[in-house]
Amino acid sequence: MDEKPVPTLKDVLAARPFVYRYLQPTPLHPYPTLSQLTGAEIWIKHENHQPIGAFKVRGGLVLAANLSAAERQAGLFTASTGNHGQSIAYAARAYGIQATIAVPEGANPGKVAAMRSLGAEVVHHGADFDTAREWVMGVAAEKHGRFVGPTEELLIHGVGTYALEIMESLPDVDTILVPVGAGSGVCATSIVAKTINPRIEVIGVQSAQAPAMQRSWAAGDMVAAEMNTFAEGIATRVPFANTQRIMRQYLDDFLLVDDAEIKQAIVTLLAHTHNLAEGAGAAPLAAAVRYQARFAGKKVVLVMSGGNLALEKLQAILGEG
Amino acid sequence: MDEKPVPTLKDVLAARPFVYRYLQPTPLHPYPTLSQLTGAEIWIKHENHQPIGAFKVRGGLVLAANLSAAERQAGLFTASTGNHGQSIAYAARAYGIQATIAVPEGANPGKVAAMRSLGAEVVHHGADFDTAREWVMGVAAEKHGRFVGPTEELLIHGVGTYALEIMESLPDVDTILVPVGAGSGVCATSIVAKTINPRIEVIGVQSAQAPAMQRSWAAGDMVAAEMNTFAEGIATRVPFANTQRIMRQYLDDFLLVDDAEIKQAIVTLLAHTHNLAEGAGAAPLAAAVRYQARFAGKKVVLVMSGGNLALEKLQAILGEG
Repeated sequence: MDEKPVPTLKDVLAARPFVYRYLQPTPLHPYPTLSQLTGAEIWIKHENHQPIGAFKVRGGLVLAANLSAAERQAGLFTASTGNHGQSIAYAARAYGIQATIAVPEGANPGKVAAMRSLGAEVVHHGADFDTAREWVMGVAAEKHGRFVGPTEELLIHGVGTYALEIMESLPDVDTILVPVGAGSGVCATSIVAKTINPRIEVIGVQSAQAPAMQRSWAAGDMVAAEMNTFAEGIATRVPFANTQRIMRQYLDDFLLVDDAEIKQAIVTLLAHTHNLAEGAGAAPLAAAVRYQARFAGKKVVLVMSGGNLALEKLQAILGEG
Repeated sequence: MDEKPVPTLKDVLAARPFVYRYLQPTPLHPYPTLSQLTGAEIWIKHENHQPIGAFKVRGGLVLAANLSAAERQAGLFTASTGNHGQSIAYAARAYGIQATIAVPEGANPGKVAAMRSLGAEVVHHGADFDTAREWVMGVAAEKHGRFVGPTEELLIHGVGTYALEIMESLPDVDTILVPVGAGSGVCATSIVAKTINPRIEVIGVQSAQAPAMQRSWAAGDMVAAEMNTFAEGIATRVPFANTQRIMRQYLDDFLLVDDAEIKQAIVTLLAHTHNLAEGAGAAPLAAAVRYQARFAGKKVVLVMSGGNLALEKLQAILGEG
């Protein structure tokens, strides 16, 4: 395991110029009717308002800004059908770098179109995600290009800037609920918040239908688990070692919610905030509702990590209600 | 008719400190897949990201900041079940002023709850909107309070700040498409854009099912019209004189779209941008699609004026598709 020092608040502060060269701070709004619903004072950090509709764009921009000339020349390589891929595509375009993104044969055409519209070369390869990733890692090695995994430290530095924005806007926050996929968001949030004020609770949220990160954190060991959630942003089958290490040091707790509760939270968010959340982005509200006795009277920030829910999935969720 | 000078760019500049004391600039994002769809280069100004979910909050804050001590003491009075009411409620709370908002007996309970959650006193009075308004105007007069109509000059000064943000972010914009209800948004936008660069086209958009403002503008006279649109933000039965006067001076054109096209635009915006638009907020995209030959190759900003679409209406629209 990699035992170099974990990222610090100083790294996040240093990442700010690279983020704000292209992005502006996202709003943190209070929602009185959600407060009435949950008994906590609910604020939402709107990372769904980012240009790619998700927080990850902050990390991609910091990574792209810190490449060597040779790396810029050889290009960025990754495998993703989700927000990570869009983040790398967005950042590569901002810096005039070629991005190659591998996806499995059956990848969602809407997401492929979104990445292509950002200028990325999207290559279909293999029947599943692991095959696509292994293939593109090989291509990157051959071309001396930079493969970008989803939990790299520079990405954590970048996404930590949303946590700094929370601390600036609402310094007396009690609890921050963060969805956990690969873990870059929750690691960055806990590093920033706990360093500035150790009394702030930072809590991860994952679906009980894909609890690998939660079980690994609870066990203090690397534990794979079933992965049956509809919420792709928090659908992790195999835990990531570097983010687990940070979470063990900084995270206060890690809650599970059911997919059905996440779907209900998507509907509640549409009705009360008129924002479309993807499953990951709605998981914090699902936790605030399910565990509401625990948060009563507290000032709680829900990180709406992204809004990239496909129209067909939304229609299905509204139809089930 | 009131013949005092119309608002100017200078008034909008002077309003900025009152707006940014409470709000931050909203994003203006490009949407490459919508550009592919329409043949224009599409950018969206996200006023749906405001704390009340609509641009009008900018105006309310400027009005509240400029009250006399006696007016602050006596309170604000208005009639609205929509974004204007929420704007006044938000601004009144920000300045510690009592707001009284009259609504008709059958008013949407969700919107009433939203205004109450902002601290406003919401009073049900009469069977329709006009009755509610007349009643609250009487109460305001009796209490020497300030009744706030939807097209007051201070409101126009405030909402013009979104147009200034567009000019700062995208100075080479060709065309700005703005939905028209009472007309404060389109007046503010045209004053700002045409003063800075007369070559920018500013175009109003209304539903063909509620064309009073468009017909009045085209006729150069005050013309009432049927009002059958589902899109309450652009549902104007009787035109407003002061905004018509400004529109005649500044506006380049005024387009009509059908309700069915607006509903389709709501679905397209959800699919491509993952933002929920209310009918008014989707009308500009409907115009960019319907009149696409006219905008081919141009840099077009669509003002997404608000996102306050009720969940039941969204479900109905998705069900029709």
